[in-house]
Amino acid sequence: MIKYPDGTVYKKKDTKPAKRRILTASNRGMSLENDINITNEYYKDKDICLILKRPTPINVVKVDYDHGARIIDAYFEKQSTTDYNGIYRGKYIDFEAKNTKNKASFPLSNIYKHQIEHLEAVIHHGGIAFFIVEFETLGKVFLLDAQDVINFYKREERKSIPISYFIENGIEIDQGYNPRVDYIKAVDKKYF
Amino acid sequence: MIKYPDGTVYKKKDTKPAKRRILTASNRGMSLENDINITNEYYKDKDICLILKRPTPINVVKVDYDHGARIIDAYFEKQSTTDYNGIYRGKYIDFEAKNTKNKASFPLSNIYKHQIEHLEAVIHHGGIAFFIVEFETLGKVFLLDAQDVINFYKREERKSIPISYFIENGIEIDQGYNPRVDYIKAVDKKYF
Repeated sequence: MIKYPDGTVYKKKDTKPAKRRILTASNRGMSLENDINITNEYYKDKDICLILKRPTPINVVKVDYDHGARIIDAYFEKQSTTDYNGIYRGKYIDFEAKNTKNKASFPLSNIYKHQIEHLEAVIHHGGIAFFIVEFETLGKVFLLDAQDVINFYKREERKSIPISYFIENGIEIDQGYNPRVDYIKAVDKKYF
Repeated sequence: MIKYPDGTVYKKKDTKPAKRRILTASNRGMSLENDINITNEYYKDKDICLILKRPTPINVVKVDYDHGARIIDAYFEKQSTTDYNGIYRGKYIDFEAKNTKNKASFPLSNIYKHQIEHLEAVIHHGGIAFFIVEFETLGKVFLLDAQDVINFYKREERKSIPISYFIENGIEIDQGYNPRVDYIKAVDKKYF
C-alpha cells in the first residue's frame, strides 16, 4: 500500500492528471469547475469544510407525467448568485470560479452585475467572498478577494484586472493530484 | 400613502393573504416554500440577511441546440442537501422547510438520510441548522433546531416528533402579511 505524506492511501485513479491543460471549445471552463467540485468532495470527506456547487437553475416549462415526471421542455437560467457557497470554520463562504486564456489580464466581461451585487451583500453580512481565477495558459490559479474585483468592476474605465494585481494582492492556489485546487489553504492565509 | 408601523410603504399586493390554508393536492407543501421565498426577498431588500433557496437539481439528458439550447429531455434529482442556506449576522445558516397535515405530530418519513448527514456536517463546522415545520391544520409554524430533529431521527423507535415537543423546545414563528413567515426573529431568540 502506497501512502501520501498526509497518510491517505494512494489510489490508482489519483494518478490521472487533471486534463485541464487540454482544452477544447466544449470543455473550456468546465475543468476548473470539475476540479473544484472534486476538491470540495475531498474537503467534505476530510471534514475540512462543507462547500457545494449550487445547481444550475433551470426553468421547467413542460413535464410529461405519463413517463415518470420526465421534463420535455425547459431552459437554462443564468445563475443570479455565484456558483459556490458553504461553511468553513464557522464562517459563511461564497465564491465564483472563472478562467481565462489571457496571459496578461483577467477580463471582467464575463462577470455579471447581479453576481457583483450578490457578493457585495455577502460582504455586508460578514461573509467571506472571493473569486478563484485560472489563467489557463500560465497554468496558474489565484484566489482574489471579492472586494478587489468589485473595485475593479466599478471603476468603469478598466475592462480587466492585470496579472500583476493577482500576484501582488491575490494568493496563488496550490494545485496537485488530490486535492486538485487546494483553495482552502489560500482562504486560511487571506482570512484567518 | 399608507405605511406599515416599520415605515415601509403599503402596497396593494400585500393585502393578498397567503393562500396557505386552502390546499389542494397540487399545491400542498408549495405554499410554505413560496411564503419563505417571499420572506427571503423581504429580508434581502431590508438588508436583514441573505438566505436563498437552492435550485432544484435537474439531470439534463438532451439539449436541442438548434432552438437556442432548449432542454428536451431531463429529470428532477433529489436535493442532496437542504432547500435553503445563506448568511445572517456573519453566521452560516442552513435549513429545511417541511409541512404536515397532522395535528398531533410531525412524521419523520419525509426527511432523507442525506439531509440528516448534511445538517450534521453543518453543525460540525459551526453553522446554524434548523427545520421550519408547518402544521397546516393548526395554522402554526415552528423553528426547531436541527440537532433535536437529528436526535429523534436516530432514535429509531420514534417515527414522528409530537407537537408538544415543538411547543416546549421549538420557537413558534410569527406569520403575517409581510414578512409572511418571520423566521429570523425565531433565529434571534434561539441562537443569538
